[in-house]
Amino acid sequence: MTTEGTSATPPPTTPEPGFEPTVCVLGVGLIGGSLLRALGAKRAFGWNRSAPTAEAATAAGFDVSTDLAHTLRLAAERDALVVVAVPLPALDATLGAVAEHAPGVALTDVISVKAPVLAAVRRHGLAARFVGGHPMAGTAHSGWDATDPALFRGATWLVAADDDADPHTWRRVAAMASECGSRLVAATSVEHDAAVARISHVGHVLAEALALAGARGGDLALALAAGSFRDGTRVAGTAPDLVRAICEPNRDALLGVLDEVLADLTAARGSLTAEGTLGPLVDDGHRARRAYEAVQGARESQAERDSDGDGDGDGPVTIRPGAPGWLDVLRAAGAQGHAVALAD
Amino acid sequence: MTTEGTSATPPPTTPEPGFEPTVCVLGVGLIGGSLLRALGAKRAFGWNRSAPTAEAATAAGFDVSTDLAHTLRLAAERDALVVVAVPLPALDATLGAVAEHAPGVALTDVISVKAPVLAAVRRHGLAARFVGGHPMAGTAHSGWDATDPALFRGATWLVAADDDADPHTWRRVAAMASECGSRLVAATSVEHDAAVARISHVGHVLAEALALAGARGGDLALALAAGSFRDGTRVAGTAPDLVRAICEPNRDALLGVLDEVLADLTAARGSLTAEGTLGPLVDDGHRARRAYEAVQGARESQAERDSDGDGDGDGPVTIRPGAPGWLDVLRAAGAQGHAVALAD
Repeated sequence: MTTEGTSATPPPTTPEPGFEPTVCVLGVGLIGGSLLRALGAKRAFGWNRSAPTAEAATAAGFDVSTDLAHTLRLAAERDALVVVAVPLPALDATLGAVAEHAPGVALTDVISVKAPVLAAVRRHGLAARFVGGHPMAGTAHSGWDATDPALFRGATWLVAADDDADPHTWRRVAAMASECGSRLVAATSVEHDAAVARISHVGHVLAEALALAGARGGDLALALAAGSFRDGTRVAGTAPDLVRAICEPNRDALLGVLDEVLADLTAARGSLTAEGTLGPLVDDGHRARRAYEAVQGARESQAERDSDGDGDGDGPVTIRPGAPGWLDVLRAAGAQGHAVALAD
Repeated sequence: MTTEGTSATPPPTTPEPGFEPTVCVLGVGLIGGSLLRALGAKRAFGWNRSAPTAEAATAAGFDVSTDLAHTLRLAAERDALVVVAVPLPALDATLGAVAEHAPGVALTDVISVKAPVLAAVRRHGLAARFVGGHPMAGTAHSGWDATDPALFRGATWLVAADDDADPHTWRRVAAMASECGSRLVAATSVEHDAAVARISHVGHVLAEALALAGARGGDLALALAAGSFRDGTRVAGTAPDLVRAICEPNRDALLGVLDEVLADLTAARGSLTAEGTLGPLVDDGHRARRAYEAVQGARESQAERDSDGDGDGDGPVTIRPGAPGWLDVLRAAGAQGHAVALAD
C-alpha cells in the first residue's frame, strides 16, 4: 500500500464539494480500471480477482490487491466510497464479501442494469448506504489494457434516485462522476432499466441480427458493405459474453422492447408485401432520430453555455441531496432528459 | 456551352486507359453532382430537371442545362458516356428521352438497385450499350450543396457484369469509377440487389425501428443514449423519401432478408423468455461482424500493398473487357469480394 490515503492524516488537498478523496474500486476491468485512472492513485485504490490485471494496475502505479477481505477492511477504515465494478455474475459473491468485511461503507456500482443490482444489495442488507450508478460509456474492448482515464469525459452518468436513497452517498457518487468529467442524469433504477433496454440493449440485438444478415450474403455482400453497415453492426464486435452479461439481466424490459420492434418490422414487412411501401415506419423512425438529435443538440448547447461560466441559469438543474423533495426534483429532471449538478 | 469537349478537336490530354474524357451526367444531386465535380468541367457536362440546382452547378463552373433534349443531342454528338443519376421514380421518363434523342450512346447509371434499372433499360431498347453501376457512397444529405468531389474516393463502385454486357462500355464505366478513386467490384445485377438488401436496405429498416424504440422511451432514454444508439440510428437521419426510393424498388430481395431477421429476432426472443438467454444470435452475430472486419481488413491491406506499387500480383484481379470468359472472371472475383482493375 503506497497511496497517500494510507496515511493516518488526510491529504492536504481541497476536494470538490462533497467528494472525499478515497474511493475503493472492486474490479479494475474497462470501467473500474478507467475509473481508477480517472481519479488517480492518490484518491483511489482497488481490488481485482485475477492477478495479472491486478499486477498490470500495480505496475501502472495503483494500489490494487487480489485480497478482497483486506481491501474491504481498508475501505472500511478509510470510510471509502466502494464502487462495485465487477461483471454482474460476480455481484453476489462481491456483495457477500462487502457485507462480511465492510458492512457500513458507502456503496455504489457501475453495472449496466440497476434494478437487479438494487435487489441484490437489499438481499445482502447493504441498502442503507447504497446508491446505484451507471456511466454510459464503454468500448468494444475490455480489460485493463483498454482502460482510459478520459473514458467518462462528456459521457452521461446515471445516478439512481431510488426511494430512501442516502443523500450523503448520493452526493459522493455524484461528485465522483463529476470529477470524471461526466454529466449527471438521475432516474429510478426501474426507469433506468426501461430506458437502456431501448437505447442500448435492443440495439445490441439488432446489430447482431444485421451483422448476421450481411454475412449470410457472403464475401460479395461484405465487400459491398459501406458506412451504414459498419456503423449499424459496430456493437456486434463486442465480446458475446459481455453482450449477454449486459442484456440478459434486463430481460423483462428487453422483451417488451423486442416485442415492439418485432411488431414494427412485421407491419413494415406486411406493407411492403401488400403495397410495395415500408409504410409509416420510415417517417416515424426519421422523426425519432430527429428527436434524438434535438435532445443531444440541446445537451451540447448546454455544455457550451455552461463553459461560458456566465451563470445565466440555463445549465443543469442544481440539487441539494437531502433537501425536501430532492428525489422528486431529480426524477423530474431525468424524465425531461435534463442533467443535474450538485449545488455548492 | 463552354467546356473543352465542345470543340471539334479532342483535348490534347492523355486520358486513363479506356477512359474517354466526355461524360454526360443526367441529374446533378448528391451522386451525380459529386461525379461531375470529381471528373471536372473539362471532362463532364450534364443536365438537371430543377433550375436552381442547374444554376448552382453552372455558377460552380459546370455546363449543366435544364434542356434534356439539347443535352442528350450533345452527348450523342460527342459520343459521351451518359450517366443516369436521377432518382428511380424519374428513370422511365429519363430513359424515354435517351431513346428519343441519343439512342446509340454508351449508358450507365448510379442508382441503388440494378435489376429494375436493367429491366427499364431493356424496355426502352437501350440495353446494347448499357452497363449498370452503383457507387457505394452517400451521406444523409442530398442536393448540389452536399456534393463532394471526394465522395467516391476509397468507396466501392459496383460495375455490373450482366450477360451480353458491352465490353467497350464496361471499360469506360470502370475507367470513370477508377478516375474517381473508387475500387471496382463486379457482380450481376441480381447478385448486387441481393447483396445490398443485406448490407444496406435491411439496415435502413432496422435503424428506423431502433430510433423509434428509443424515442418511445421519451427524453430520459434519449438523454441516456450513447455511441451505440447514435451509430445504430445514423441512417434513420436520411430523408424518408430517399429511404423509400432506395429500399422499396428492391422489394423482393428485401422481403427475404426481413424474413430472416424476423426469424432470428423471434428465436432470440423465445430463448430469452424461456431460458433467460439470447441464444445463438449473439455468437453468430459476433462471428458475422468478425467476418466483415476480415473482408474490410483484407481490402485495406490490399490497398496498402497496391500503393507500394511493387506489382507483386496481390492487388486486384486484372480484367480485359471482351477477352474470352471475361464476365465469368468478373463474377468469380466479385463472389469472393475481390476488387478488379482494368489491364493496361
